[in-house]
Amino acid sequence: MLTRRTPISVTEAQKRVQSIPLKTATEIIPLEEANHRVLAKDVRAKYEYPHFRRAGMDGYAIRDTDDNDFPKEFSVLGEIQAGATWDQPLTPGTAVRIMTGAYVPNDAAKVIRIEKTRPVDGNPSRVQIMTSENKSNITEAGTDVKKGAVILSHDQEINPGGLAVLRAFGVKEVEVYQRPRIAIIATGTELLNSDAPIAPGKIYNSNGIMLKNLVEETGGRVDFETQLPDDASTIRKVLNEQIASHEIVITDGGVSVGDFDYIGDRARQADRLLFNKIKQRPGSVTTAFVQDGTLVMALSGNPGACFTGFYLYMEPLIRRYQHQSSRIRKVRATLAAPYNKTNGFDRYLRCRYAIKDGRCLVYPNGINRSGSLANLQTTTCLALIPHSTTPMQVGTETDAWLLPFK
Amino acid sequence: MLTRRTPISVTEAQKRVQSIPLKTATEIIPLEEANHRVLAKDVRAKYEYPHFRRAGMDGYAIRDTDDNDFPKEFSVLGEIQAGATWDQPLTPGTAVRIMTGAYVPNDAAKVIRIEKTRPVDGNPSRVQIMTSENKSNITEAGTDVKKGAVILSHDQEINPGGLAVLRAFGVKEVEVYQRPRIAIIATGTELLNSDAPIAPGKIYNSNGIMLKNLVEETGGRVDFETQLPDDASTIRKVLNEQIASHEIVITDGGVSVGDFDYIGDRARQADRLLFNKIKQRPGSVTTAFVQDGTLVMALSGNPGACFTGFYLYMEPLIRRYQHQSSRIRKVRATLAAPYNKTNGFDRYLRCRYAIKDGRCLVYPNGINRSGSLANLQTTTCLALIPHSTTPMQVGTETDAWLLPFK
Repeated sequence: MLTRRTPISVTEAQKRVQSIPLKTATEIIPLEEANHRVLAKDVRAKYEYPHFRRAGMDGYAIRDTDDNDFPKEFSVLGEIQAGATWDQPLTPGTAVRIMTGAYVPNDAAKVIRIEKTRPVDGNPSRVQIMTSENKSNITEAGTDVKKGAVILSHDQEINPGGLAVLRAFGVKEVEVYQRPRIAIIATGTELLNSDAPIAPGKIYNSNGIMLKNLVEETGGRVDFETQLPDDASTIRKVLNEQIASHEIVITDGGVSVGDFDYIGDRARQADRLLFNKIKQRPGSVTTAFVQDGTLVMALSGNPGACFTGFYLYMEPLIRRYQHQSSRIRKVRATLAAPYNKTNGFDRYLRCRYAIKDGRCLVYPNGINRSGSLANLQTTTCLALIPHSTTPMQVGTETDAWLLPFK
Repeated sequence: MLTRRTPISVTEAQKRVQSIPLKTATEIIPLEEANHRVLAKDVRAKYEYPHFRRAGMDGYAIRDTDDNDFPKEFSVLGEIQAGATWDQPLTPGTAVRIMTGAYVPNDAAKVIRIEKTRPVDGNPSRVQIMTSENKSNITEAGTDVKKGAVILSHDQEINPGGLAVLRAFGVKEVEVYQRPRIAIIATGTELLNSDAPIAPGKIYNSNGIMLKNLVEETGGRVDFETQLPDDASTIRKVLNEQIASHEIVITDGGVSVGDFDYIGDRARQADRLLFNKIKQRPGSVTTAFVQDGTLVMALSGNPGACFTGFYLYMEPLIRRYQHQSSRIRKVRATLAAPYNKTNGFDRYLRCRYAIKDGRCLVYPNGINRSGSLANLQTTTCLALIPHSTTPMQVGTETDAWLLPFK
């Protein structure tokens, strides 16, 4: 069915996707699985840190009143290994051998490093201390963190250093934002199963594996992925089922202007059609709608358009589900090699970039038609070629978007 | 046992770690598991791409000899959907309805977009074509990639775009470098199990979970992790077992100058001691040795020193196992807030950074003693405070290392 579509700008389309209300939820997960998840709540210290007076050096713990008139001999009451405690009083003229990280007796004021002591021949229960120390070599309890202080904040993405902090405070589980559940549906009778031999007219579903991995490295969770032939009732049935159980459904294919515009047909009947035409190349037919609170993002089946559409619309939304901003960095850049095509719509050109003398230089990356895919591995940024009737000159400044994990 | 150690520079220590011979191997894995793995061999196109003449638009395919004298009516021989083939000849005055992405008949020269046609009332087997097209709207076979061309190169880290390229060429498995097998051994009688209640003199093993996740996000594979009390024979036994089955063993703790320097003792008996003292703070006792071809990296048990030591020595080595350079970016930076301590050795200060007007500004991040850990989550770079007897002035330029995934 041919229907008139009203194209909107990329910025407006991005705004419409980013402003949909989110079905966010939190979940409690073991700390072992929390790297790069995002905290939903502040975590506070259950105790001070260090939670006991701790020796910073290997040496001998002595009382304040004995910290004078060196060199002199001390009687050694015993040894405190790391992990042990000590409850015997230090009397005048006595010292306790102590290890780095060990519990320091309450009545000790200083740890004299072992390098500043000498053994007393034939008597392991005595030691000669040669000089004092400027520092106590004791970390007082609570030096780093007071009890009740926020140790990690909500909306922080936990990293390995953060895991160490949480474990140090005995945290075993954390409350994090759920990753959005995302279904991926590729449509097209031309799609082969990956086990089938290649055949004329047929292609492999290259968008499926690309979208699944893009979603997952962005922080989404793909728990449904399929490919469907161009059959209206099957597509409608599967689409409706997945809408019911996912925060986001991404489709690719089935949004051309032709007879098999099944996704486009569904979009026109949705609770809310966000757009079905965007002033962009590649991917002008990119369509989005909301049904029962689920966003359906219908990307073009063309690999280049599918790739570009993911970064323009899906990456920021999936990050928003994690209360994080996009990892794509928008910069001013300079076109550093010729690109001669002109466009009626703005083109998001697949490029490589290099930073030279503080400037970002962008180089068109091989074949840039929307149906080509050979450059998807090596593309590291998208650069804007504004719509124009004359080619953009080398050296012209433009916007570029540096892609993450590339 | 107190033994004299000869400190070396950080640069020399890094060079010694980076120059050890690697026990590299490759493995064949399914494409579905290959995101961010590194190809060990070039992958070549088994067929050209597109592998058939492909329609770029929905419309009508016509012969070259009919591409004139518009508007005129054509007899419609049938329809070619995406995924189908066609073997009937196009005779003069005939057209075939064709979908985007579909197989184009050999004798068709052009696809006239549907927007340039009109139906003929009451006769679905006829169509009126109003005007011609400047372009053929056909992508010739092999336009993007020739048969036998390299589609992805060895030593490339595969990304989702690369997965799409590989899948498009029917690739089901790829040969990649094995991730190094890494064992992590924490030592110290003070270490509690994560399920035990906190107790005086005891601490949780915060380094273990940190190192495991740092290793894994760097591309290593942790298949053994344990914590051991300060018992010489147990430590020696476990260490030797893990050396036999791993490319790298990382230990933390047990390298102080005190009585429990069990890892240091083992290092002195190794095939090759790389170093056991480095001119750095924190972590001057950091030790490395090679035994039976396995690198043992003995990091300090102090959280800050352990964190710093991982980035200085382990991250580049694990990346080298993947034939990749370090993800840590060394930049010139400016100290932007006071840091008043002086050091006998160069200090790698845990900082946050901000880029302002093209300059990298570094801000000391909270408490920077080697035993403190509260700042490990929020530290985004290490900045060099060279050894000196006077504090470094705010505004001084220095080296900084920007940490990945932070």
